Amino acid sequence: MSKQKPFRPKARRPRGFEDRTGSTLRVERHLVECASRVYDDWGFEPLMTPAFEYADALGKFLPDEERPNEGVFAMEDDDGQWMALRYDHTAPLARFVAENFQDLNKPYRRYQAGDVWRNEKPGPGRFRQFVQCDADTVGSSNPASDAEMIALAAEVMREVGLKDGDYVIRVNDRRVLDGVLESIGASDPDRRMRVLRAADKLDRLGRDGVAALLGEGRKDESGDFTEGAKLDTAGIDTVLNFLDATGGSREAVIARLEPLVGASETGKAGLAALSEIHAVLGAIGVDETRAAFDPSIVRGLGYYTGPVFEAELLAQATYEDGKPIQFGSVGGGGRYDDLVARFTGQAVPATGFSFGVSRFAAALSALGLTGEAAEKPLVIVVASEKDRSADYLQMAAELRGAGFRAEAFVGGGNMGKQMKYADRRGAVAAVIVGSEEREQGLVTIKDLKLGARLAADISDNRQWREEQPAQQTVARDAWIAAVKEVSGRDRAQG
Amino acid sequence: MSKQKPFRPKARRPRGFEDRTGSTLRVERHLVECASRVYDDWGFEPLMTPAFEYADALGKFLPDEERPNEGVFAMEDDDGQWMALRYDHTAPLARFVAENFQDLNKPYRRYQAGDVWRNEKPGPGRFRQFVQCDADTVGSSNPASDAEMIALAAEVMREVGLKDGDYVIRVNDRRVLDGVLESIGASDPDRRMRVLRAADKLDRLGRDGVAALLGEGRKDESGDFTEGAKLDTAGIDTVLNFLDATGGSREAVIARLEPLVGASETGKAGLAALSEIHAVLGAIGVDETRAAFDPSIVRGLGYYTGPVFEAELLAQATYEDGKPIQFGSVGGGGRYDDLVARFTGQAVPATGFSFGVSRFAAALSALGLTGEAAEKPLVIVVASEKDRSADYLQMAAELRGAGFRAEAFVGGGNMGKQMKYADRRGAVAAVIVGSEEREQGLVTIKDLKLGARLAADISDNRQWREEQPAQQTVARDAWIAAVKEVSGRDRAQG
Repeated sequence: MSKQKPFRPKARRPRGFEDRTGSTLRVERHLVECASRVYDDWGFEPLMTPAFEYADALGKFLPDEERPNEGVFAMEDDDGQWMALRYDHTAPLARFVAENFQDLNKPYRRYQAGDVWRNEKPGPGRFRQFVQCDADTVGSSNPASDAEMIALAAEVMREVGLKDGDYVIRVNDRRVLDGVLESIGASDPDRRMRVLRAADKLDRLGRDGVAALLGEGRKDESGDFTEGAKLDTAGIDTVLNFLDATGGSREAVIARLEPLVGASETGKAGLAALSEIHAVLGAIGVDETRAAFDPSIVRGLGYYTGPVFEAELLAQATYEDGKPIQFGSVGGGGRYDDLVARFTGQAVPATGFSFGVSRFAAALSALGLTGEAAEKPLVIVVASEKDRSADYLQMAAELRGAGFRAEAFVGGGNMGKQMKYADRRGAVAAVIVGSEEREQGLVTIKDLKLGARLAADISDNRQWREEQPAQQTVARDAWIAAVKEVSGRDRAQG
Repeated sequence: MSKQKPFRPKARRPRGFEDRTGSTLRVERHLVECASRVYDDWGFEPLMTPAFEYADALGKFLPDEERPNEGVFAMEDDDGQWMALRYDHTAPLARFVAENFQDLNKPYRRYQAGDVWRNEKPGPGRFRQFVQCDADTVGSSNPASDAEMIALAAEVMREVGLKDGDYVIRVNDRRVLDGVLESIGASDPDRRMRVLRAADKLDRLGRDGVAALLGEGRKDESGDFTEGAKLDTAGIDTVLNFLDATGGSREAVIARLEPLVGASETGKAGLAALSEIHAVLGAIGVDETRAAFDPSIVRGLGYYTGPVFEAELLAQATYEDGKPIQFGSVGGGGRYDDLVARFTGQAVPATGFSFGVSRFAAALSALGLTGEAAEKPLVIVVASEKDRSADYLQMAAELRGAGFRAEAFVGGGNMGKQMKYADRRGAVAAVIVGSEEREQGLVTIKDLKLGARLAADISDNRQWREEQPAQQTVARDAWIAAVKEVSGRDRAQG
């Protein structure tokens, strides 16, 4: 008789997907809550479209045209229609607006925070599911609505706890560069594309590399040759001057750009939009420190039709080895007036801003801006006597009443195992009531952070055990005060 | 020459999926924030598993065994492995715990709120994506951890704004009924299943219907015959007495159950767990009003192995036509000790509680418990002069500073269109500064709620226009105070 072994699947998560835990999630939630509060206050309405859209409705609208075959997760429904998981929040917004166009209060202002999925080849730190948080205004061509997007982004920066100067929203208008191109006679689509691509590489290749791409072309380290935009020297200089026009006040940038766009109507329209954006930002108290004009901001290639924005963190932080962390861009957006048209044939003006939540939250963690929930200290009540759970849970409830996160240990195991548990949970204190303490009306409180610091200094284990400097036993009516003291000490020294 | 028409996909969302908007989402978010705050405070850690799991890891673990072929949304990854979207948060938790078992701090206490997907036939009010919010403790067999789950659920009820008495967590232990079945000699699997199914129908079929299902069987209205559990009269009476044993104090329920389980060790273990749960709940101040023992709570069929819980709303509310709304169960859970074993072969005790967020949030909306964000009044600043956007946005910023949600209209359209917009957005007031007001340093404030009420009363349009009782013009330095007065009046009378 053969006994069949039960099937045991291997416990593993799918390739390219991550489990997000504790502190990471708390910071992401803090960020989304801050952003939602700001959007709410500014009169935006929350929207949550389903994870699925019909594949034809989703289309190929990834913002980055250089990877047009960027995959989506698609499946056939049982009625034969193909559905795909959303890859951003903009394509579903376009479907929602087109579907409800007649009934929708316009301008329609909504925000949406949630997962998006991309069926990419997984790689280190590159996940196939991540969180984006978007706000958009659909149905207004007024530059004031672009200015609002910029102000909203700057306001979210403050709301999460960043100081002015630790971030900047960089702003440009795509039409300014188009005007510059017109003025140097280089506005045919192919050339325009090459110039946009070159401009987008200023950070990576520097002035000389960009100049080569604007001229005849450039050979990279691997020997691959990229054909250039074939501008003449005057044209190259004009474009480089354009990219250099950043810095100083917003009026100063506009003044520098005016001669570069020359007589181009497109360029003038872009500058007019920037002027109006400047006026609105000034009126609502968003100064240059918070939102600057920067002609080098291009933001991808297709998609955007006017003002474009990028949120950059400037705050300094270092890795444990002292190396500076480069945060870079944590979000961006701009005006896109053609998206709804693919459903209805009718152009509908729209402008929006999107935060990359995971990336932004990682930066906030590195800067210690983790939000209230992440900062609330945890205290563990040790289960010393097996049949006293009710007492310990009651003490945990008292701790919560005093403003702590608190937990009574409900597992099995001796004191050593429980202390290790408390340490690994990051608790500031462990509270112990054994039979002795109970009979004498006492509570022992162990300062886990101080204990860890002392343990690192004391090599003589016996001395350590005898002194137990991080542990104190107090009367029952003084125990909460003692935990508060321990927690305060930890916060002052941590 | 034929001109090819561009492809225009029809804008529609996939079958069985919904777009959730404004107030619905705000209440759901309020609920999840409240629950998260409680779980955080009790020492639970947030977890977010990816939307996808490998299909073999997900398995067929839907709690309801009567629909074992309940579908999931599955697709083949490009390496040939099948993935499926999670249908609940428990199966991914089991995978996560099994995958990280060695490194995990045990007991592992986590909460997870997010979407789940079920590939069901769509129907009215039945969606293929919805939100669940779960908390679980894995690695503790201590009934104190079950008591904690019950207390957590009761605490979330308070946190969302429900008064004690407006909800109850009903608690049972599956082993008590097993003990009763043992004591009447009816514990073979087939009979047990029939009794459990019959018990689960007490609400729907009443005592007589259940008695029939416990005995020979029952013919329903359509003529279909369901075979019964074939208990004798004494057995049927014992089971019915068991189901009737609810009501009064938790001690009273235990006292009523004790004679029914007789000498059964299983039954005694169940009663011992209930006694310990009662002791812990008492110690942390969760009384009978908030958590009651109710032997009729069975919670599905497989899956649970000990204590089971169900959260029920008792608060009264009515539909617009005066009919009472039946809220019923908004969440439930229990102890399930076998789930991780399918990966590791090793039984790991676990207990958890899950809220159905959409259903619970709908109930909270009906009860007016919508959270702060939903209650904050909205004010719209009308765009009277086309080129004054900066001024209007500045006024909106002032309103936000005074505690309002505020928005300056950034679309196009005359006063009538803008007033309609403000009305439909649910704004309490519209603020108007036309050229006349601007030159004279005045602001006009329109009370939209009062305006609507008066409009309903006044049939003479001319009189209405002349009096404009819901509109006032005030000096520029008094306008915020005037908006506050309007908003206060609306809140008092709304």
